[in-house]
Amino acid sequence: MARKTRVLVPPAGALLIMLLAPRGGADEGMYTFHAPPLKELKAKYGFAPDAAWLEHVMRAAVRFNNGGSGSFVSGNGLVMTNHHVGLDCIQKISTGAKDYVKEGYVAAGPADEVRCPDLELNVLESFEDVTAAVAKAAAGAADDAQAGKLRKAETAAIEKQCGEATGLRCNVVTLYGGGQYMLYRYRRHTDVRLVFAPEQQIAFYGGDPDNFTFPRFDYDISLFRVYEKDAPYRPAHFFSWSDKGAADGELVFVAGHPGTTGRQLTVAQLEFQRDVRTPNRLRSFAAVIAALKAYGAKGDENARQAKEQVFSYENAQKAYRGIADGFAAGGLMEKKKKEEEDFVQRAQKLPAVWAEVKDSWARIAKAQEALAQFHVAQYVAESTVGRTELLRRAVAIVQLVAEKKKPNGERLEEYRDSALESLALDLYSDAPVYKGLEKTLLVACLEDGIAVLGKDDPFVAAALAGKTPEALAEEAVEGTKLLEPEERRKLVKEGEKLDAKKWAKKIAKSKDPMVRLALRVDPVLRALRKRWEDTVKSVEETEGMKLAKARFAVYGADIPPDATFTLRLAFGVVKGYEAEGTVVPPVTNFYGLYGRSAAFGGKPPFDLPPRWVAKKGALDLSVPLNFASTADIVGGNSGSPVLNAKGEVVGLIFDGNIESLVLRYLYTEEKARAVAVHSAGIKEALLEVYEAPAIAAELGAPAAK
Amino acid sequence: MARKTRVLVPPAGALLIMLLAPRGGADEGMYTFHAPPLKELKAKYGFAPDAAWLEHVMRAAVRFNNGGSGSFVSGNGLVMTNHHVGLDCIQKISTGAKDYVKEGYVAAGPADEVRCPDLELNVLESFEDVTAAVAKAAAGAADDAQAGKLRKAETAAIEKQCGEATGLRCNVVTLYGGGQYMLYRYRRHTDVRLVFAPEQQIAFYGGDPDNFTFPRFDYDISLFRVYEKDAPYRPAHFFSWSDKGAADGELVFVAGHPGTTGRQLTVAQLEFQRDVRTPNRLRSFAAVIAALKAYGAKGDENARQAKEQVFSYENAQKAYRGIADGFAAGGLMEKKKKEEEDFVQRAQKLPAVWAEVKDSWARIAKAQEALAQFHVAQYVAESTVGRTELLRRAVAIVQLVAEKKKPNGERLEEYRDSALESLALDLYSDAPVYKGLEKTLLVACLEDGIAVLGKDDPFVAAALAGKTPEALAEEAVEGTKLLEPEERRKLVKEGEKLDAKKWAKKIAKSKDPMVRLALRVDPVLRALRKRWEDTVKSVEETEGMKLAKARFAVYGADIPPDATFTLRLAFGVVKGYEAEGTVVPPVTNFYGLYGRSAAFGGKPPFDLPPRWVAKKGALDLSVPLNFASTADIVGGNSGSPVLNAKGEVVGLIFDGNIESLVLRYLYTEEKARAVAVHSAGIKEALLEVYEAPAIAAELGAPAAK
Repeated sequence: MARKTRVLVPPAGALLIMLLAPRGGADEGMYTFHAPPLKELKAKYGFAPDAAWLEHVMRAAVRFNNGGSGSFVSGNGLVMTNHHVGLDCIQKISTGAKDYVKEGYVAAGPADEVRCPDLELNVLESFEDVTAAVAKAAAGAADDAQAGKLRKAETAAIEKQCGEATGLRCNVVTLYGGGQYMLYRYRRHTDVRLVFAPEQQIAFYGGDPDNFTFPRFDYDISLFRVYEKDAPYRPAHFFSWSDKGAADGELVFVAGHPGTTGRQLTVAQLEFQRDVRTPNRLRSFAAVIAALKAYGAKGDENARQAKEQVFSYENAQKAYRGIADGFAAGGLMEKKKKEEEDFVQRAQKLPAVWAEVKDSWARIAKAQEALAQFHVAQYVAESTVGRTELLRRAVAIVQLVAEKKKPNGERLEEYRDSALESLALDLYSDAPVYKGLEKTLLVACLEDGIAVLGKDDPFVAAALAGKTPEALAEEAVEGTKLLEPEERRKLVKEGEKLDAKKWAKKIAKSKDPMVRLALRVDPVLRALRKRWEDTVKSVEETEGMKLAKARFAVYGADIPPDATFTLRLAFGVVKGYEAEGTVVPPVTNFYGLYGRSAAFGGKPPFDLPPRWVAKKGALDLSVPLNFASTADIVGGNSGSPVLNAKGEVVGLIFDGNIESLVLRYLYTEEKARAVAVHSAGIKEALLEVYEAPAIAAELGAPAAK
Repeated sequence: MARKTRVLVPPAGALLIMLLAPRGGADEGMYTFHAPPLKELKAKYGFAPDAAWLEHVMRAAVRFNNGGSGSFVSGNGLVMTNHHVGLDCIQKISTGAKDYVKEGYVAAGPADEVRCPDLELNVLESFEDVTAAVAKAAAGAADDAQAGKLRKAETAAIEKQCGEATGLRCNVVTLYGGGQYMLYRYRRHTDVRLVFAPEQQIAFYGGDPDNFTFPRFDYDISLFRVYEKDAPYRPAHFFSWSDKGAADGELVFVAGHPGTTGRQLTVAQLEFQRDVRTPNRLRSFAAVIAALKAYGAKGDENARQAKEQVFSYENAQKAYRGIADGFAAGGLMEKKKKEEEDFVQRAQKLPAVWAEVKDSWARIAKAQEALAQFHVAQYVAESTVGRTELLRRAVAIVQLVAEKKKPNGERLEEYRDSALESLALDLYSDAPVYKGLEKTLLVACLEDGIAVLGKDDPFVAAALAGKTPEALAEEAVEGTKLLEPEERRKLVKEGEKLDAKKWAKKIAKSKDPMVRLALRVDPVLRALRKRWEDTVKSVEETEGMKLAKARFAVYGADIPPDATFTLRLAFGVVKGYEAEGTVVPPVTNFYGLYGRSAAFGGKPPFDLPPRWVAKKGALDLSVPLNFASTADIVGGNSGSPVLNAKGEVVGLIFDGNIESLVLRYLYTEEKARAVAVHSAGIKEALLEVYEAPAIAAELGAPAAK
């Protein structure tokens, strides 16, 4: 339950579906590497990657476990991602005195590379289809809840066995909402060090107004280096570099980790998204942003502490507003209804198929009704915990110890053996925790809970225990010892030594007010989770599996699954579009950056960092800075490399335009565009603004001898 | 009838109405100089111009009679307008060998200034309310048609008397659709010489795609000089110049000649605009653009001849598409219906008022039904004549001679004594006429007529006389002597010597095929005109007068009349807006120009003239080029000066953004913006790109000693 709920560009979500109509020649699809779009590419572009190309791309792509993507771009373990993906680490290694977020950071050499306290990177090494085993385990279950439990136990067992056999991070991934289960094996990297970061002001140039728009002028890049045994890691696969980038109309690929799409959702699920989930998110984001801004307004150091989170929540807010606008504009739901009708009619013509799925839509719809009863309560509870560093960790400690005493297959997923290493990275992180910020977030979330659910809501009541949010937060944050990583480690160790009963007795006597708060909310969190698993998740999985099979029968098997924050390959072309009565060019350049700044008189958020003002004369202003393509991406793709057919880096995905926000539910290439930093612009600024020729030269270069 | 139907930015039209709801603090209004918005300005901006300010601005403002605005900007008669307003002259003085449209023109000194063959400028010197006299003349008329005739006779008499007394151009202007009649006295200038024109490519940078959009990067300016007796004219009033322009948020004024608005139209009139007039225009423009492009595709010289007209019709087409989109988007008609309901309800509460207007809406609606029966036929007839240089002049000759034999008050308006000087300027112009272009336009218009009305339409049938459009055009254009101005003059002189009967006999025997074509269509044109005057115009005027009075009674007298291509004062502030998910800055700059060109790889219509490429290094790229403001403008305002409160020129109106196209019917300042060239950018390019320091220094300067 102790999930972090912060979100990258655009935000990750929770549900699932499929584009029912047979797809035309559109550049749609976030394909898995086990079912790449060879046919589509051959037909449309006369180019199909071979097995070696795919293996190379798969193993040079990197997942940032805090919610983004990246790639190896040198033989010496250099990893490229967005600044806004690297920001979590950059913020954690910054202080008021040396603020790398504001000032940027250029490591003069290996000795200067700064280690991130709790960053984990994953590289997908191999995969295996385990659908048959999972299905077999659940066969003959009495009901949905029982089937869900059996599947959970089986996937936990597969993961554990794989981990023990390979030493890799093993995850069973649910695709097609239950239609396919894949075992993914990842290499984990936890010694990751910052090499280069620009000033956030140029990485996120134009701030919230320009976010999710194009034309755009952002130098949204950061570079890290993976180490093993204190030496630069030498990956077997890394991308080479194209200095000139891709031309207008050129075929490009995006290899990254899209977080969540809902293209295969039923209409009932989509209505839930529109009517319950999206408005709830927007209300919640508004509350927390207001609180963070009030906190930041109290002084420079407060502002510095809050800035990353303000950025993150405003980002999510704008993305959800785009989605809400997409629903409100009309057309989306009508299209989805037509697709569903088409699916139903075609399925009805295949009696064996129809017998399986005839009740599926109704059962999923019923599950949405059930979910609507407690979704907001569950979200308030989980996000209150997830948004605070201290309460999240207190709950994790309380739950971790209890869960580890259960068989692996019966635990909450995040405490499975296969998840523990990654959990430990967050749990024992020595990244700074700011008391004022913690109190602010706790108060904001609880006040929002009171406002929307009332004081008698079980979570709110358990958390407050009769106190005001302010009094509770003051007591819990000021009184806890959990600020110290060692205290957290000690507590878990103590718990692991005791049996379940003794531990329960001991922890119940804890005088740490944050631990006591965690103990009060733990049963409420568990009850909400169980309710969701039994009445929603299990139904969606069971019926999802049937619908996925029916969809294959009706439309064929070429449609990629909805995004699940696992590695995908998308493709498209560099391309402008029509907007505001005219044509938007496919690229922007440094002229445009300086022009936009001058047009606003250099006022924030259109100001330029001093280094960029000083070095203007050195830049070739016509060099491309950002570009747009039709590649099919969504939140989680941030930091993905954009590759040409030769597999060279031509860009770095960092955003989508405002018209791309509905891609979550429906692909369109009329105006929706993926937005990337251009490889030429990356190098030009590294050389001319940051005067970092060694770093620039390393991009795409093999390992040093 | 020989009206030119070409149109500037955005297009001029034909009908009329009013914003009924009491206006809030919006910057709405194209005010007359006899009822300036002193109260509104004082309340909102704390500034109200005094009588001297108003007199000065009125007399320094200039009307370009080909459909635009301008202003005196030096004591030596220098006049500033848009390039696209000056284009008609620039095209006429260009040839294939010295193409000023393509290459631009910078006069090295007075001797190099090139006279325009048929350009007339007007400056409003004074005005007088003649409503009482016109109303009195029509009192006691038997019916609408009779009332219309009496009003026409009275206004003709007023104009003639005024002209004889003052030597000025005198026009009685109908305001509020008949609610007010004003006598305007203009000084006419016909010796107008080209001083400076940039290359059309930079004046109309971004071509049709960027037209009616913002951000924009157009150097849309041209400079002329007025001469009297072969010496530079020294106007009593001219505008001084602001080198720095207006700041974001600063109050600005626009003094110009908006062509047509329809804010006071009734719902029935608006429905006619939506359902009949707008679709008809769009169909007709598409036909003529296709024909002009086909003609232009045949070679460089053809392309040069056709380019100005392609520009002009594409401009009108995009404007009407914007209007059609505005209707289609919904909201506009609903708002107008509510306004009308409100007006009706308030009027009903005032018995004396209601007794006057209770039938007005129904009568106007009936007139619209009548008009719908023949509007397309009338438009095809008038535009076929108006779009061709030769047929337009042939018809003008035939009608002029006939009309001059009637009493002044009974003539078609365009042949009144007060109009004859201006008519002669076009009739005897020695501007080049291109036979190929003439044939192309004649064929395109007649083919469109056949397609939409059939061969039996009276105008189409009379024009073709059994021939194909191609055969007719070939015969008429190749066989006519009217290409020569002296032939046209000779024919009119002959006609003036004969009495009506003898002239009729003589002209009937003409062997000139263009004259014979004019003779065939003349009676059809007259019949359509009479039908319109008797069944539509007179009703709209009679009822319009009543509605205007009722509107004053209900809402007060502060609402300015709909635009009538007469001098108006608008105001607003320099201001950006929100679009495409972000904020649009209030200004653009030279960075943006070069950036947009580079982003499109310098491909047309985003290429730059060689001079602009060569001189890039000399420009301060951060200098503003274009800017947006909330001032209320519409087609005809092209070329209007934008002034600060001190009356200095801070810019030059040349366009509105796409959101401004519905301003024709409904003002909004949310996103609609007037777009102007910035005074600082005008000077910067004159100095650095065109190396014309003398011209730059003259801007705003007093008469040379």
